[in-house]
Amino acid sequence: MTVPAGRDLDVDGPGDPRGDQVVEQLVARLGDQLVVRDRDIIETYRHDRTPLLDAGMPLAVVRARTTDDVVATLQVASAHGVAVVTRGAGTGLAGGANALDGSIVLSTAGLDRILEIDVAQRTATVQCGVLNGDLAAAVADQGLWYPPDPASRAISTIGGNIATNAGGSCCVKYGVTGDHVAALTAVLADGTVITTGAVTRKNVAGFDLTRLLVGSEGALAVIVEATVRLRPTPRPPATLVATFATMRAAGDAIVRIEHAAEPSLLELMDRTTIGAVEGLTHMGLDLDAGALLIVQSDTATALADIERCEQACTDAGATYVAHTTDPTEGEMFLAARREALPALERLGSTLLDDVAVPKPTIPAMIDTIERIAREHEVVIGTFGHAGAGNLLPTIVFQPGDPTSAARAHAAFEAIVTAAVALGGTITGEHGIGSLKTSYLDQVVHGPERGLMARIKSAFDPQGILNPGRAI
Amino acid sequence: MTVPAGRDLDVDGPGDPRGDQVVEQLVARLGDQLVVRDRDIIETYRHDRTPLLDAGMPLAVVRARTTDDVVATLQVASAHGVAVVTRGAGTGLAGGANALDGSIVLSTAGLDRILEIDVAQRTATVQCGVLNGDLAAAVADQGLWYPPDPASRAISTIGGNIATNAGGSCCVKYGVTGDHVAALTAVLADGTVITTGAVTRKNVAGFDLTRLLVGSEGALAVIVEATVRLRPTPRPPATLVATFATMRAAGDAIVRIEHAAEPSLLELMDRTTIGAVEGLTHMGLDLDAGALLIVQSDTATALADIERCEQACTDAGATYVAHTTDPTEGEMFLAARREALPALERLGSTLLDDVAVPKPTIPAMIDTIERIAREHEVVIGTFGHAGAGNLLPTIVFQPGDPTSAARAHAAFEAIVTAAVALGGTITGEHGIGSLKTSYLDQVVHGPERGLMARIKSAFDPQGILNPGRAI
Repeated sequence: MTVPAGRDLDVDGPGDPRGDQVVEQLVARLGDQLVVRDRDIIETYRHDRTPLLDAGMPLAVVRARTTDDVVATLQVASAHGVAVVTRGAGTGLAGGANALDGSIVLSTAGLDRILEIDVAQRTATVQCGVLNGDLAAAVADQGLWYPPDPASRAISTIGGNIATNAGGSCCVKYGVTGDHVAALTAVLADGTVITTGAVTRKNVAGFDLTRLLVGSEGALAVIVEATVRLRPTPRPPATLVATFATMRAAGDAIVRIEHAAEPSLLELMDRTTIGAVEGLTHMGLDLDAGALLIVQSDTATALADIERCEQACTDAGATYVAHTTDPTEGEMFLAARREALPALERLGSTLLDDVAVPKPTIPAMIDTIERIAREHEVVIGTFGHAGAGNLLPTIVFQPGDPTSAARAHAAFEAIVTAAVALGGTITGEHGIGSLKTSYLDQVVHGPERGLMARIKSAFDPQGILNPGRAI
Repeated sequence: MTVPAGRDLDVDGPGDPRGDQVVEQLVARLGDQLVVRDRDIIETYRHDRTPLLDAGMPLAVVRARTTDDVVATLQVASAHGVAVVTRGAGTGLAGGANALDGSIVLSTAGLDRILEIDVAQRTATVQCGVLNGDLAAAVADQGLWYPPDPASRAISTIGGNIATNAGGSCCVKYGVTGDHVAALTAVLADGTVITTGAVTRKNVAGFDLTRLLVGSEGALAVIVEATVRLRPTPRPPATLVATFATMRAAGDAIVRIEHAAEPSLLELMDRTTIGAVEGLTHMGLDLDAGALLIVQSDTATALADIERCEQACTDAGATYVAHTTDPTEGEMFLAARREALPALERLGSTLLDDVAVPKPTIPAMIDTIERIAREHEVVIGTFGHAGAGNLLPTIVFQPGDPTSAARAHAAFEAIVTAAVALGGTITGEHGIGSLKTSYLDQVVHGPERGLMARIKSAFDPQGILNPGRAI
């Protein structure tokens, strides 16, 4: 992968004299410890977790420890017009943190301090490199809860979560990452530090820069600090599992469930995923089932809620239903869903798609995905956060077979296009990164893309922040 | 009020030949019916509901009925570099819709159709001029609920609510207007129509233009259509009323209540407001009380929640507590709060402030407001949405006495500054408009203001949309 054509970046890659000069200036500003020039170590910073995507060769990796380190890096980069690719823990799934040729990779994983947990105000202020799971554990000690729960939470950073507006299972009731961000500190391309937002729940002073930075994938500014809102620890949930002969029946159940209660989790697995999970775990899943739903409620009347959801599943024609209020047993029900991706990964190489569709169209979307699998002769297991309409169709292909990889890519594209045709979007929670820029036109049309480009220029006039990504 | 100095607007006001030309072109594009030149009718469009604020004299008022009307108006305005002040129902409280000299006032109140209510998807798509209360009633017929509940909801438009990111009582549990907006259609200054957002709960394709337009007070684009998210009709709430000898005790109760339950409403009145309401209603409020709280819960266990909240109030030293599960009686409890502003308005002219502070600092903020009232020799009644830290200190002064008005303005400014000193913000729910632009520096500093100005230019390069407002 290279910097997109037409960009006026002043350096051509490692080894050229101007690149050397940039690295020398980084070392002069930051010291030897923070500026990585070792090719073996650089190699470990070139990719995020997106499969099958090329990454460029950066000039150097800066392992920032402070906001001042970030400022210094951006001042050097902007002085030379060098691209900067910011990365947290590198767990992204859309190539948004893959290195560009001749860029500086700026790792903010070292900004890893929890600065304050304000119990009365119910906020936490953290540096961007704090792991989601570490924040969650620290606030849990105070009887508080940080809801956003991307599957990567144990290993992904708050800054990365914010940069991609990460989703997860909680979104059906508690919303996405951005719904929990009160204020940010960020660094503009020229090294200017800005602060946005307010700790108060209501604030209408000026434009909402906070929400603009959420989901901006490193293309507008480098987020260095965040104040997030916390909630009280939720009650232990009641959990329901149900299987259905057909996806259409499960889709019917999803609509009925949402009329019966407000679930705190509503996850889906299709037939292919059920088969893969059973093949891995031998947990006794029904291999004849066309769909499996897992539902939780965490209200004060969770058992009654779940019983109403169970009735909704039965009314929709469920072939099997069971529920529990025991948290350990509930976790066992959820284990099937958690094993979905690992189980599918056993079948070959995988290409993980991420789309969101209006909830009433989920059965139609699954039908279409099954048709795409047949037409492109690939295996596609679909699971996801059905309560938010967010599906993660996972295409399995054989890495040694180039025609298989080509068919996987064609299926990937067909899924994205199908989601848009149903009124949905091309990415629900992973972002555009570098993986989906070519599909962005399907949902963001000419005038809006022009506007987004002008907004990027307002933040980053030289276009050095993650160029070619996000928009 | 005039267009701020330094702006290069091509017309000087009504009567000048270039202004006449602009009006002629509006008539040519829109017809005589939609372009108001009658001075008496224009007069009714010059002000929003902000007291004590001058308004300019516009060239004409356009009463748009369609998106095409808005496009035509903006094309004419941008061709001539004429300022456009957009207004919904004109219920704003920050002068954001007051006319500017030589501007076109663009009323979108006539775009008043509910386009779609999608029950399965739980969204409604409306034109911007639909009244909040009309939308609420229409979706209630379908068993659905549009939560945002500014006090003006019966008479304010969805477009105006979005442009100011309107608050209300529901925010403590359900968030602000922006939390319920999924997608927008808007018209840029040059007449380009853009669409933003997605109906799906999760969407990370491109920058979040939807949230950027929310709260932008007519300075970025003219919002013409919105798709909002709906919820199921909430349960009838249980309601609690409690009085306290001191504001400090009430502040303690607020913190305890939020540990006891998740209220769906948490409103506050101070001693001055209690006295004013009792003077108006003779409903038997305790005139010795230093504070009054009204709390609601709408969960499945609302009574138990409210009983825990009642205990929290008792533990904080409440002098009186009572609760009810009868909705009619609950409304009677709320009546005291609803009469707060009318009751204070009986005492003189009023200047309504709007600040938000971190919730633990509410007692300190009220202490400060009482000190400000003494120092400036004005009456200030404070009430508001305490659960969101949002206070509405209402300064009462005598309109015939110029020193009284001057003291009121000094108190207004002192309140804003005090909120910022406590870590709060200069406006929680009314916006900056033209009323608070001079205070914006207190919370939005140089680099962020520069960035906001560049973002405005990205939308509106000539700066014709509500110039001098919002930022």
